[in-house]
Amino acid sequence: MTNNPASPMTHIYLDHSATTPVDPRVVDAMLPYLTEQFGNASSLHRYGQAALATLEQSRRTVAGILNARPNEIVFTSGGSESDNLALRGVALATRAQGAQPHLIITPIEHHAILNTAAQLEREFGCAVTRVPVNRHGGVNPDDIARAITPHTILISVMYANNEVGTIEPLSEISKIARARKIIFHTDAVQAGGYLDLDVEKLGVDLMSLGAHKFHGPKGVGVLYVRGGTPLLPMQTGGSHERSRRAGTENIPYIAGFAAALQIAQSERAATNARLLALREELVEAILERVVGAQLTGDPKNRLPGHASFVIPGVIGDEMILGLDLAGIAGSTGSACTAGSAEPSHVLAALGYPAELARGALRLTLGRDNTEAHIARAVEVVADVVGKLRRK
Amino acid sequence: MTNNPASPMTHIYLDHSATTPVDPRVVDAMLPYLTEQFGNASSLHRYGQAALATLEQSRRTVAGILNARPNEIVFTSGGSESDNLALRGVALATRAQGAQPHLIITPIEHHAILNTAAQLEREFGCAVTRVPVNRHGGVNPDDIARAITPHTILISVMYANNEVGTIEPLSEISKIARARKIIFHTDAVQAGGYLDLDVEKLGVDLMSLGAHKFHGPKGVGVLYVRGGTPLLPMQTGGSHERSRRAGTENIPYIAGFAAALQIAQSERAATNARLLALREELVEAILERVVGAQLTGDPKNRLPGHASFVIPGVIGDEMILGLDLAGIAGSTGSACTAGSAEPSHVLAALGYPAELARGALRLTLGRDNTEAHIARAVEVVADVVGKLRRK
Repeated sequence: MTNNPASPMTHIYLDHSATTPVDPRVVDAMLPYLTEQFGNASSLHRYGQAALATLEQSRRTVAGILNARPNEIVFTSGGSESDNLALRGVALATRAQGAQPHLIITPIEHHAILNTAAQLEREFGCAVTRVPVNRHGGVNPDDIARAITPHTILISVMYANNEVGTIEPLSEISKIARARKIIFHTDAVQAGGYLDLDVEKLGVDLMSLGAHKFHGPKGVGVLYVRGGTPLLPMQTGGSHERSRRAGTENIPYIAGFAAALQIAQSERAATNARLLALREELVEAILERVVGAQLTGDPKNRLPGHASFVIPGVIGDEMILGLDLAGIAGSTGSACTAGSAEPSHVLAALGYPAELARGALRLTLGRDNTEAHIARAVEVVADVVGKLRRK
Repeated sequence: MTNNPASPMTHIYLDHSATTPVDPRVVDAMLPYLTEQFGNASSLHRYGQAALATLEQSRRTVAGILNARPNEIVFTSGGSESDNLALRGVALATRAQGAQPHLIITPIEHHAILNTAAQLEREFGCAVTRVPVNRHGGVNPDDIARAITPHTILISVMYANNEVGTIEPLSEISKIARARKIIFHTDAVQAGGYLDLDVEKLGVDLMSLGAHKFHGPKGVGVLYVRGGTPLLPMQTGGSHERSRRAGTENIPYIAGFAAALQIAQSERAATNARLLALREELVEAILERVVGAQLTGDPKNRLPGHASFVIPGVIGDEMILGLDLAGIAGSTGSACTAGSAEPSHVLAALGYPAELARGALRLTLGRDNTEAHIARAVEVVADVVGKLRRK
């Protein structure tokens, strides 16, 4: 293996939930700000004012897509920072007001939520309830309602799950949160490129996005913050982002975020239809060709290009390495925990025994995938699983 | 004014302490990772492993320059995040151990330090002492020693000041900190491109750097963390950066950070000699041509390309706008507080009355500046000051 991955001609990338290649149109949108338009957006001179104009134009573009006001958009360094700022920011702002904050999350959230909630519990006197999910990874809004206490200040439920693709019922949860005046956050990192991000329809007060899941660069995200939401800043310094997130703005990536989101959302209907058809083909063929394979997550209510399975009798990491050698890039689940010996916390929460969860396979499709890729992937998966089972 | 700044041919950029253009060699080092080598460094397949190899090579490059171990290098989203992680991370880790932490800083630190210390004081029960500086902006190590209490857990003193360029006596402060087993952090954001970053010679336990001050991109930084230093992570999630900073790694910018630091540090001697000569020319000419102008900061012990003044009878922001119209990009001081009505906290700490501090001018030179730029800048400054004084 070299530092140079095989070209797309010989290697098939089916790990778009881990990350995506940057769209060439997005690279074009970014390049001017890496070179001649290099100003610091806080500077008064024309270099600075040009950077500021780009920053604010990008903010308006994102706000428009989210049906939000520009001053409700906070640019961050990525989805993880957005999740951290949402939870830590609200919990510590509320704690500062004298309450003992109670948070409600689900056990299938990304680690950026899980580990932040755990730190708030361990270090900052917060209480956290983890509301269980059903075997498809769906949250029951009634369970959320039952978990609410007089101290509940925040409910955080992801829009779509990274490992199994299940889409959660945000609008219904929102009604419960609003009736109790509880702040509602969603981690929409996986949903960003594929689902409707209208914060009014969703009824969310905070929403996390990361560009690299929708063909933007890695290292830039957004936290939507509804006006009036209490938030103790976690990165203090200059008054950037209305003092909610200090630090010189990364103008190339912010312009890239806006361009990538605009492209993904404007092409969403056509992309989703294509990905859905390919995914159905892929799921059907894997279930047919690989004896014992089961689809994980919701069979219908899931991200369009997202296929996830458990395959008995194989170890996920060995399968991924076998696929890689045969020219297919896939994953077991979250890239953020790849190589970890622990079975997936998501599959555990869905009720899969550790033995079965160890055979997880996630194949997530993207814009550039074709029917030929799917056909080839099915052959390779069947072959690799067969070899591993015979070992 | 348009969204397109004038070309360098007609505009002279003298605001390198605010930010720098990305070196074309650095852009070249970054581009492959924005396009074909787009993997998530946590993925097991070859796209991921290629990204991981670049990440770890970049880490080794930076560690080599800092005379540190690779696992002591934490990549962040910039200098502000590094400063925040250093202060908040150490203070809250120590607080978690039951102590009431006491921090020592100076009043001329960047706002990423000042406002983080203030938040720790206000929200998290920490105590903060701000040790005064002399009229040149220098800290007296004896004053640091006298400020130490049994609860002191962290001393944070910047390597070089952003507004007046003064270099602080880190090694002497380090001796005091080490004798008392107190953790020593330095904000080296302004120093990164110009001064020796050997953490052993400096005797620091934590050091913040940001790439965009030395011709790298905006949005990537480093926190050097000496092995064994307690640090509560402030961005939790995946186990990236050995669980000290969660979030999918920004490989293009991390490669860019390493390339920019290597270039800046390897060319440092020659660059500094050139900048020093130009700066001396500039300072001499401004003091001669602008009646009443005074150099701020240390006349000798300062960053090589850094010139800063107070000019009686003018308002800084008006001067900057006048210079900009005449083709010179300068600043009053920190870009992070440009446009703020408050006079500089740095000049106040040096003893300048508000009236005089309002006439601050900072001209900071970079690699591409020439003698002709200096000559032209002097003419323009003299002219703009003259006009403003006659208004």
